[in-house]
Amino acid sequence: MEKLQQKILTEGIALSNTVLKVDRFLNHQIDPHLMKEIGEEFANRFKNEKLTKIVTLESSGIAPAVMTGLILDVPVIFARKKKSLTLTEGLITSKVYSYTKQETNDISISSKFLNKDDRVLIIDDFLANGQAALALIDIIAKAEAEAVGLGIVIEKAFQDGGELLRKKGYRVESLARIKSLENNTIQFINEEEKI
Amino acid sequence: MEKLQQKILTEGIALSNTVLKVDRFLNHQIDPHLMKEIGEEFANRFKNEKLTKIVTLESSGIAPAVMTGLILDVPVIFARKKKSLTLTEGLITSKVYSYTKQETNDISISSKFLNKDDRVLIIDDFLANGQAALALIDIIAKAEAEAVGLGIVIEKAFQDGGELLRKKGYRVESLARIKSLENNTIQFINEEEKI
Repeated sequence: MEKLQQKILTEGIALSNTVLKVDRFLNHQIDPHLMKEIGEEFANRFKNEKLTKIVTLESSGIAPAVMTGLILDVPVIFARKKKSLTLTEGLITSKVYSYTKQETNDISISSKFLNKDDRVLIIDDFLANGQAALALIDIIAKAEAEAVGLGIVIEKAFQDGGELLRKKGYRVESLARIKSLENNTIQFINEEEKI
Repeated sequence: MEKLQQKILTEGIALSNTVLKVDRFLNHQIDPHLMKEIGEEFANRFKNEKLTKIVTLESSGIAPAVMTGLILDVPVIFARKKKSLTLTEGLITSKVYSYTKQETNDISISSKFLNKDDRVLIIDDFLANGQAALALIDIIAKAEAEAVGLGIVIEKAFQDGGELLRKKGYRVESLARIKSLENNTIQFINEEEKI
């Protein structure tokens, strides 16, 4: 997605060889128009999949997921990282190990919102090692629903999450695929190099 | 907002005299079309305020805030409850005391996204005792920006946050104002009773 790549180049910052800061339009400040275009792009790529639900993870996945859900006319569920006071019984939970934070956290979705007839699109802001995506897939499987594919805003293609998920047979659509962040330079994988 | 009130009546659950569960369309599962209509309503109410930014708090405020920002053509910033790895320097922080959880938490916004020329609309899913709203107002004041008003999806009008903020002179626009949740019955304040 050309506009997203331009935005990453002009407003993103390669903080290290593995960390890309995009807090100017995605992770802290949000550009609503870009989110709408991202939603249109995901909706277009998955429009023939007969989706019934979109699942994301709080917080940065919510804006692109809601824009996609608006166009595809399906509800969006955001998995919670923390247990809510008003959301206690009937939770489906999975564990996410964060390499960057070196800790394991539970994420949960209320079982009443997913069932065996659901065809689910997972949307998230980043794909790195795939741990969050695998936990969402695990929750969807526990609900006996089907994870139809993943819509990722930014894939760090130099980490192994994308390969891992594609090898397992999941359709992964990433709107920007980062080849490298070395030397504080953001490099993308060109379309020709696409897996 | 009639449609929102109907949604609360049909899909909301009064869990106790103070807790309203709206996880079917706002707090966990999100209805994107309703969020769009909420965004249109906020945009319409604040369209003459020359807003430059919208500020909300992760996670449930993000969807209505982004829809409002899309229509008003302004960026949305979500205050973070947890410090991010890629968001460390230049934070403006304030404390929120949660009566329900009985704990104090920091919320933060990066100082680079707010400045003295900003006219800011605060959007949040709930207004109860006003602690989160006051913390956001405090952050906006520390940035020398102006908090122009508050757009609240659901105000628990039987708690004192709304009165507190209005007495301080803030314009508070709540799309649904709950009078009471007693006896597991959701009652709204009618328009005639509006402050």
